[in-house]
Amino acid sequence: MDIREALYTTRAMRRVKPDPVPDDIQARILDAAVRAPSGGNAQGWRFMLVDDKDQIAKIAALYEECIAMLWDTVYKDQVAHANTSDDPDAKQFKSIMNSVTWAQENFATYPLLLFAFDQFDTTGGSIFPAVWSAMLQARADGIGSSLTSVLMFKNEETLDVLGVPTEEGWRMSCCVPFGYPTGKWGVAKRRPAHEVSYRNTWGTPVGFEINEPLWP
Amino acid sequence: MDIREALYTTRAMRRVKPDPVPDDIQARILDAAVRAPSGGNAQGWRFMLVDDKDQIAKIAALYEECIAMLWDTVYKDQVAHANTSDDPDAKQFKSIMNSVTWAQENFATYPLLLFAFDQFDTTGGSIFPAVWSAMLQARADGIGSSLTSVLMFKNEETLDVLGVPTEEGWRMSCCVPFGYPTGKWGVAKRRPAHEVSYRNTWGTPVGFEINEPLWP
Repeated sequence: MDIREALYTTRAMRRVKPDPVPDDIQARILDAAVRAPSGGNAQGWRFMLVDDKDQIAKIAALYEECIAMLWDTVYKDQVAHANTSDDPDAKQFKSIMNSVTWAQENFATYPLLLFAFDQFDTTGGSIFPAVWSAMLQARADGIGSSLTSVLMFKNEETLDVLGVPTEEGWRMSCCVPFGYPTGKWGVAKRRPAHEVSYRNTWGTPVGFEINEPLWP
Repeated sequence: MDIREALYTTRAMRRVKPDPVPDDIQARILDAAVRAPSGGNAQGWRFMLVDDKDQIAKIAALYEECIAMLWDTVYKDQVAHANTSDDPDAKQFKSIMNSVTWAQENFATYPLLLFAFDQFDTTGGSIFPAVWSAMLQARADGIGSSLTSVLMFKNEETLDVLGVPTEEGWRMSCCVPFGYPTGKWGVAKRRPAHEVSYRNTWGTPVGFEINEPLWP
């Protein structure tokens, strides 16, 4: 697969089938992850693949609670707006809510979870390139994924289920469920790059406009 | 370019030529960045391309001080070890030190910097996928890059040079210099995936060994 197709079409795929992710694909996912850069090439990371049904069920129960907490806290205003409006923002948020609610109700059917852990990475810059590489490599093998940090709401409980030695400084960075998607790949809608980019100083236009995605 | 070639060969390229990065490549870099996922698709990001020589010179002066601080703090033990030992860790660290020292001495010659900013992203999970996409897209166009968060040591001064409205919650995530590499692309050495990966619980072997990179 061309790099640009992967970069443009690896969108959040929460709705996936319960079919297992083959071992050779799992190996490629992890091997791609460790090729990513990390500060000082320290590779202060650990990855955990979870495919045991009992373990996934335990995480699913925590995820369910976390999502309820998410709507009630971080996204409280957006939930209220989505429930009372029909503007584009509300519509987009409703679509994400539907997708996340699907994940909440079906988390236990995910065939494979990837947890990433970091040690002393204060910015996330030494772990999320690796996580994103894992997701891009999966995409090349037809496997969908979605990145979530919501389990942070039940951080202690999650680390306990996974047996993480927090006394050594290991922290959960995120959880990424993988699986064969039920839907189609496509280019996700985004605010155009020139609307979120500047040149040389904040507020100065970047110098070009990109009104349509540059791929395909 | 194949996605796997990009994932395996986009290593830190600090030594790059002063030749400018063409506009069409700059546009592709930013357009690829905004395709990345972010929590709740919030896209709480801003990107800044810096190619003005005076601005780059100001950042170069700050970078020089930050690197000196880095050796003196975070990497103090590793610097001492590298200077007194010849074991593989010491050799690898010396090689990184040489590369970073090159950047320190030549920062002002970089033709293009990309700064990424985030707002309310506590983990980095909503900005570093975008930054890594930018670096992978650049790789596909033959442009090298390296990710650094070291300017955090002079955070206030850097944000001041760039005119960032911190009162709105914007924070610098990282700086990525871009340019045509002077050296060769290659697969970076990493600790094998199975040595940093577990299955289902911490410490349980992942179930396969990957003793050679799975690409090419």
